[in-house]
Amino acid sequence: TPIHSVDLGEAEAFFHQHAAENMSAPDAEERFSQALVEFGQRGIFTHTTEELEFGARLAWRNANRCIGRLYWRSLVVRDRRHVTRADDVAAECVDHLHAATNDGRIRPVITVFAPDRPGRQAPRLRNDQLIRYAGYQGSDSVVGDPAQAEFTRWVESLGWAGKGTDFDVLPLVVETPEEGVTLAEVPADAVLEVELTHPELPWFADLELKWHAVPAISSMPLRIGGVTYPTAPFNGWYLGSEIGSRNLVDPDRYAMLPEVGRRLGLDVDDDRSLWKDRALVEINRAVLHSFDRAGVKVADHHNESRMFMAFVDKEERAGRVAHAEWSWVVPPMSGASLPVYHHYYDESVQLPGFLPAGDWSP
Amino acid sequence: TPIHSVDLGEAEAFFHQHAAENMSAPDAEERFSQALVEFGQRGIFTHTTEELEFGARLAWRNANRCIGRLYWRSLVVRDRRHVTRADDVAAECVDHLHAATNDGRIRPVITVFAPDRPGRQAPRLRNDQLIRYAGYQGSDSVVGDPAQAEFTRWVESLGWAGKGTDFDVLPLVVETPEEGVTLAEVPADAVLEVELTHPELPWFADLELKWHAVPAISSMPLRIGGVTYPTAPFNGWYLGSEIGSRNLVDPDRYAMLPEVGRRLGLDVDDDRSLWKDRALVEINRAVLHSFDRAGVKVADHHNESRMFMAFVDKEERAGRVAHAEWSWVVPPMSGASLPVYHHYYDESVQLPGFLPAGDWSP
Ligand code: HEM
Ligand code: HEM
Repeated sequence: TPIHSVDLGEAEAFFHQHAAENMSAPDAEERFSQALVEFGQRGIFTHTTEELEFGARLAWRNANRCIGRLYWRSLVVRDRRHVTRADDVAAECVDHLHAATNDGRIRPVITVFAPDRPGRQAPRLRNDQLIRYAGYQGSDSVVGDPAQAEFTRWVESLGWAGKGTDFDVLPLVVETPEEGVTLAEVPADAVLEVELTHPELPWFADLELKWHAVPAISSMPLRIGGVTYPTAPFNGWYLGSEIGSRNLVDPDRYAMLPEVGRRLGLDVDDDRSLWKDRALVEINRAVLHSFDRAGVKVADHHNESRMFMAFVDKEERAGRVAHAEWSWVVPPMSGASLPVYHHYYDESVQLPGFLPAGDWSP
Repeated sequence: TPIHSVDLGEAEAFFHQHAAENMSAPDAEERFSQALVEFGQRGIFTHTTEELEFGARLAWRNANRCIGRLYWRSLVVRDRRHVTRADDVAAECVDHLHAATNDGRIRPVITVFAPDRPGRQAPRLRNDQLIRYAGYQGSDSVVGDPAQAEFTRWVESLGWAGKGTDFDVLPLVVETPEEGVTLAEVPADAVLEVELTHPELPWFADLELKWHAVPAISSMPLRIGGVTYPTAPFNGWYLGSEIGSRNLVDPDRYAMLPEVGRRLGLDVDDDRSLWKDRALVEINRAVLHSFDRAGVKVADHHNESRMFMAFVDKEERAGRVAHAEWSWVVPPMSGASLPVYHHYYDESVQLPGFLPAGDWSP
């Protein structure tokens, strides 16, 4: 299916949904006729800023893998469809981070850049998130984030050189038809980070772990009403367990479990002692504690699960059904202790929505 | 689809699978012709004991929700298709428990009773597991297992009276066309139980928790080669987290988290302290420790996940694909710390297999 090309059936359906959910929206069929005229002339049509806002919020509401959707109406939408130069795209991404970070009181934000139009490819961001730590592949181990080793090698081949620490923020990589691939550093003041300490274990600080405050996915095209916006980075705040049970823990990420298990004095050679489960809890406690202490908004999986169930209820009261992918909305630890676990979801995909990251790779 | 009636296409396919995987199996088409003759005469056909064994093992191999399938070849199959009287059915279930329990060295066993045939309904077991603890609904709480409250009320209406403790084993309920519904106690010596203590926390014993050694599902019809065996109780050994993260913990089961959290001295009013996650780990440690100490076989989720991945590999080496339901094979705690989590599975259903428990209810 040509999901990246303009689809007029989708366009019409979206104008109807816009009209149905918004008193102030124009008549759907009139709006659609207007779009048809523009499409006939230019091979594309232009969403109003209000349509773009509503569409981006719906895309969040329809994000089947996202547990944070109760807040979908609060999404701040930055309409940057007029921005075309690579350095301006990068600067807008940095502004996005400032707006989102908000001194720790994280705001959900999306910045929408132009769609492709006939004969003209719009700018592309090649990062999968706006903030990612480099991974440097050594002969038998990786410094930094192993998930970024391939990308890091690629930006190095383009001339970037990192400091070689475990937490070097990768540059933004913007590609435009005129300028090709260009790099731009993310300035340090746009990257709020939290150093990890534990509420009771002083040695935890010695691990010198930290994580950034804002998770901003930049690889997923946004599809609204038959038009694809290939570059539309968005962020929420973190769910603590994304950091404490995945990023710092997965064997192919920072893989901190054995070190933490040993420092806890556990028998890390005996899985049946549940040392991994115990270390996992302490890392997650450290994440929540440290973010709280630093005044940086972060969700815990218990509360966020409840908020998600409130979203499911609220959708039902609005006469809709909240679709979801169970394996994604159930957090990566203590699954069955959370209300999201004990529920079946319709997993089918709805639009507007975020599309899977393309098969582009460095 | 009339899944409970005889299906000759399925029959033929099964004879072919039997022949393909077993040197000593008869020629599939000859065997099928023979079955057709019998079917023409009696409206059903009869699997040989060897076919029944192979079919039951395949049903386990095809159980998409089961993490324990590496051992599928070891299933002990008890062919009890000739048993028709209710008291004999109950006695065979008790024998099943003895064979399975094996003084703690649990063996996977299935006992297959007769299929229905035209004009004659075979015996039915109305229990969902051979061993279940009664649940007594009080005015605002339940003594015992709340999941069994409805069933308990039903057997009470049939004349059963339990002692009223938290762990009264429910009677077997067998239904035959001649005798109607009949009850039979499970003798105490057929129910091995493990009292729960904790490796480090002496007060854990004061909770007076215990659990039975053998999980034996008795509500799922077995479908082999186009024939449904409505009564075919089977058991494996427990995965510790079924007891420690679900049966003793789910809010609609024994709901022990708050009590354990309080005894651990945790702040049970602040979910963000991850007290639930910590209490969960300690209950699971108690389960594994207690079963080990009692010499009763139990799996832990770390090792069983690895065994499941070995099963997936082994199936691949045999030229097959292990299908699975992700949300069931991923254990209910510490999901992402387990290899099963990081894998996609084909979720489609294969036969032979166990069918969902019918819509029968008391
Ligand atoms: C406000 C706080 C938010 C929280 C706590 C939250 C939480 C999460 C979590 C835990 C995941 C799973 C991530 C993973 O396992 O890799 C996720 C996925 C996702 N979220 Fe959210 N989210 C938030 C905001 C947003 C916003 C603002 C959007 C879009 C406007 C969004 C769209 C998505 C999408 C599209 C995915 C799937 C990503 C993928 O397929 O890789 N979320 N979210
Ligand atoms: C040998 C040790 C075994 C282990 C450790 C094991 C483990 C498990 C676990 C943890 C579940 C999920 C249960 C739940 O969440 O409610 C499960 C489900 C299942 N297992 Fe196994 N199992 C074993 C043996 C067997 C055997 C012998 C059979 C059949 C011959 C079997 C067939 C199934 C089926 C059909 C289900 C799905 C039950 C349902 O839909 O409610 N398992 N198993």
